[in-house]
Amino acid sequence: MANSPFGETVTERIVRVLETFDTDRTFQTAAEIGRRARLPSTTAHRMVADLVECGLLERDEDQRVRLGIRLWELALRGSRALRLRQAALPFMEHVQARIREHTQLAVLEDDETLFLERLSHPRAGANITRIAGRLPLHASSSGLVLLAYGPEELRERLLAGPLEAVSAETVTDPAQLRRVLAGIRRDGVVVAPGSVEAVSTGIAVPIREQHGRVIAALSVVLPRTAPTRPAIEELRAAAAGITDAFGAEGP
Amino acid sequence: MANSPFGETVTERIVRVLETFDTDRTFQTAAEIGRRARLPSTTAHRMVADLVECGLLERDEDQRVRLGIRLWELALRGSRALRLRQAALPFMEHVQARIREHTQLAVLEDDETLFLERLSHPRAGANITRIAGRLPLHASSSGLVLLAYGPEELRERLLAGPLEAVSAETVTDPAQLRRVLAGIRRDGVVVAPGSVEAVSTGIAVPIREQHGRVIAALSVVLPRTAPTRPAIEELRAAAAGITDAFGAEGP
Repeated sequence: MANSPFGETVTERIVRVLETFDTDRTFQTAAEIGRRARLPSTTAHRMVADLVECGLLERDEDQRVRLGIRLWELALRGSRALRLRQAALPFMEHVQARIREHTQLAVLEDDETLFLERLSHPRAGANITRIAGRLPLHASSSGLVLLAYGPEELRERLLAGPLEAVSAETVTDPAQLRRVLAGIRRDGVVVAPGSVEAVSTGIAVPIREQHGRVIAALSVVLPRTAPTRPAIEELRAAAAGITDAFGAEGP
Repeated sequence: MANSPFGETVTERIVRVLETFDTDRTFQTAAEIGRRARLPSTTAHRMVADLVECGLLERDEDQRVRLGIRLWELALRGSRALRLRQAALPFMEHVQARIREHTQLAVLEDDETLFLERLSHPRAGANITRIAGRLPLHASSSGLVLLAYGPEELRERLLAGPLEAVSAETVTDPAQLRRVLAGIRRDGVVVAPGSVEAVSTGIAVPIREQHGRVIAALSVVLPRTAPTRPAIEELRAAAAGITDAFGAEGP
């Protein structure tokens, strides 16, 4: 690919431009994008014009741009995230209908927890996760499950620290975290009160593909005072159903 | 942006590579991608390596590649499709719990119907639409709604034909289609038996933003023999709810 004067490929620059958008910044000018992506102004304007031309960005009336529906379409057709999410959704809906708080599907991505889907009850309690949002692996219940069953190399690297506290109760002591992860592998579930927010308890179980490998985590976020047993049972049944549904669809 | 010898930008080529993936073709070799994107083999291999490096594609054990979770994440963070879909989902779930067939959310994109979301009952009847899939505007009930309220220029251009029949009952006669569209603008709903598949009836209503502009269509697909009245009532209530929820979130 054509490289820039700084030895960066055009693809890397496109990714840097797209990375400047998030849930709190859905509209930007080319100048703002250039500043956030650390690109020269003329480069930023040319790239934005080019991305608009291809439909990956869309321009509004004020000459600001946002992510294009075309980008969403390209990313979702034939995507693994969509297939897993489609297999999981009916089971997530079932959990959600019973527990009526927040039900989430997460995968391991770049050493972090990436949330693929979330269903929420209109009157559910606090929950800071977002679809396509991320949290550190050691913080959320989903992340703890992904870390417990993830590559040993990753686990040892994270345990070597430093481990950032997301809330006052996030487990950041390596020895204690090691015990939590061993407990998850033994019990197949984690109950993590207050590890992300003081008012909530996260509960997560692993989702396995048909050969037993853990590919995702299914979780609920409950108010701290809610009973955990019904949620654990619902999550386990749903995870088993997703394994069957996803396996039946092929690799 | 750096142009190829054929005057095409790198961005355009990246889009052409990503376009070769779909639900029936989730894994491809670089050679297959090159053939389908009509790119020289060396170019295709270099672009695939570059996209893998950036995480937009992921390589599997057989050296085939698939769309990367990173692409999905970039497309969804801060996306309009995700925001509309998030506003609509609780109302779609409510329709789905009552009607128990297929409930869909669609928008107008590049003169076609683009489906943003679909909820399906495990034992629901036939339905060929897919998330991130498309159908001609004049075929599905969702598309008819989007066409009825869409730009006049688009409507006249499509009515000037030719109009392809997706099923034996797709309305392809311009005069008849004009009457159908006028009926939708009058009644605020369309009931389209057999227009996509002989065994199904599509029913769709417009979703408006707070200033009244139609931004999407909400539809159900029922077996041909099912009563339509309950579905129409559910759809209308849901569309009104989505207008309020989406409007409350800002532009």
